[in-house]
Amino acid sequence: MPVITVYHLASSRSERIVWLLEELGLQYRLEIFPREANGAAPAAMKEIHPLGRAPIIRDGDIVLAESGAIVNYIMHCHAKSRLAIRPSDAPAFARYVYWLHFAEGSLMSVLLIALVLSRVPDAASSPVTARIRERIAQMLSFVDREVADGPWFAGKAFTAADVMMTFPFTTMRRFLDYDLAPYPNILAYLARVAARPAYQRAMAIAGPDAGRKA
Amino acid sequence: MPVITVYHLASSRSERIVWLLEELGLQYRLEIFPREANGAAPAAMKEIHPLGRAPIIRDGDIVLAESGAIVNYIMHCHAKSRLAIRPSDAPAFARYVYWLHFAEGSLMSVLLIALVLSRVPDAASSPVTARIRERIAQMLSFVDREVADGPWFAGKAFTAADVMMTFPFTTMRRFLDYDLAPYPNILAYLARVAARPAYQRAMAIAGPDAGRKA
Repeated sequence: MPVITVYHLASSRSERIVWLLEELGLQYRLEIFPREANGAAPAAMKEIHPLGRAPIIRDGDIVLAESGAIVNYIMHCHAKSRLAIRPSDAPAFARYVYWLHFAEGSLMSVLLIALVLSRVPDAASSPVTARIRERIAQMLSFVDREVADGPWFAGKAFTAADVMMTFPFTTMRRFLDYDLAPYPNILAYLARVAARPAYQRAMAIAGPDAGRKA
Repeated sequence: MPVITVYHLASSRSERIVWLLEELGLQYRLEIFPREANGAAPAAMKEIHPLGRAPIIRDGDIVLAESGAIVNYIMHCHAKSRLAIRPSDAPAFARYVYWLHFAEGSLMSVLLIALVLSRVPDAASSPVTARIRERIAQMLSFVDREVADGPWFAGKAFTAADVMMTFPFTTMRRFLDYDLAPYPNILAYLARVAARPAYQRAMAIAGPDAGRKA
C-alpha cells in the first residue's frame, strides 16, 4: 500500500498535517527539514515544490502544498471524508467551512502582517501597526466568543477545522508573541486540544519542541 | 423559495460571490455597501457579521463570511456541487483544492502584506519589503507556469478555484499596483475569464467599475 510522504519544516504549519494523519490513523512517511540559521526554509524544499514552503506532501505522482488543500485531500481521498462535515448537515457545515478557511484566510493572514511589521524598524510607532493590532484583538475576541460553546469549532464534533485553527494559537506564538490571557475560552479550547492523544503524538514527532530533551 | 442575500462591499473580494452565483444561475438578493472615505468597510457591515468584512451572505438563519467558505457553502448546499471537482478524480481534485486555498492562504496573504508595507513610511527601503517583493515575483512566476496549459486552474473544467484565483489579478490591483506584463499566461487566462458571460454580468453588477457611466 502506497504511503503519503509529509515534508515537515521544523516549527511550522506542517505540524498540522502530522496531527491530521495521527487523528485519522493513516500511515505516513515523515521527512523533517530543519530551518536555516536565519529561520528560512532550506533550499532543498524547493526541489520538492517550486515555492519551497511547508507543508508539502507527496502521494504517488501528486505533490501538493498549502495547508487547507492538503487537509482536504487527505480526508477526502484517503479517509472517506472522516473529520469533515457533510453539506447535508448545513448549519454545522457552514461553521466547518468557515473555520477551515478563516484559519489561513483571515487569522494567519493578519498575524503574518504583524510579524512582518515587527521586523521593520520604525513601523512600531506607525498608525498602521496600531490598526493591525486592533484587528488582531477584534479577531481574537470574536474567536473567543465563538468557541465558548464548543467544544469544537464546528460544534459537537472534532473536525479538520480544529486541525487548521490550533496552530495560530500555539506554535505561531513562538514567532509572534501575543497574549492569550484575555481569551479564556480559547485557552480552555487549547486545553481540550492538548488532551487529545493524537495531538500529543503529533507534537512529540513534529511539534516545535520535538526532539528536544525534557 | 428562500434566496441567498449577498452583502457586497464595493471593489472587494465579494465580487467573487456574485460571479459564482451568476455562473451557477442561482437567484440572489444583493445589498451593496459603499466604502467609507478612508477606504474602510462601513460600520453597518458589523451589524451583519461581527468582523464586518466582505464577503458576507445570509441564507435563512445562517450568516457566513470568508470567501472560500461561502464559495464551498453555495456550491455544495445549493448547487449539487457544480463547479467543484470530486475527490474520486484525484489529480484534478488536488489541483482544485490547491488553488481554492492558495488564492487567499498564500497569494492574497502576501499581497496584503505588501499593501500594508506600502502604507508605512520608511518601509520602502527596508530589506523586509525587498523580500516580500521577491516572494510575490516568485509566486507570480509559479502561477504563470501553472496556468500555461490551463485553460483553467484545475485543468479542463472551469471551477470555483477560478472564481477564487481571479480577484488577486484584477480588482486587487486597484489597491496594490503591480505589473502583470511579465506573465503572459496569466494575461491570457484573464482574457479567457473576461470572455465568460457570467463574469461580465457579475462585473457589471458588482465589479470595481459597476455603476459608473462609460
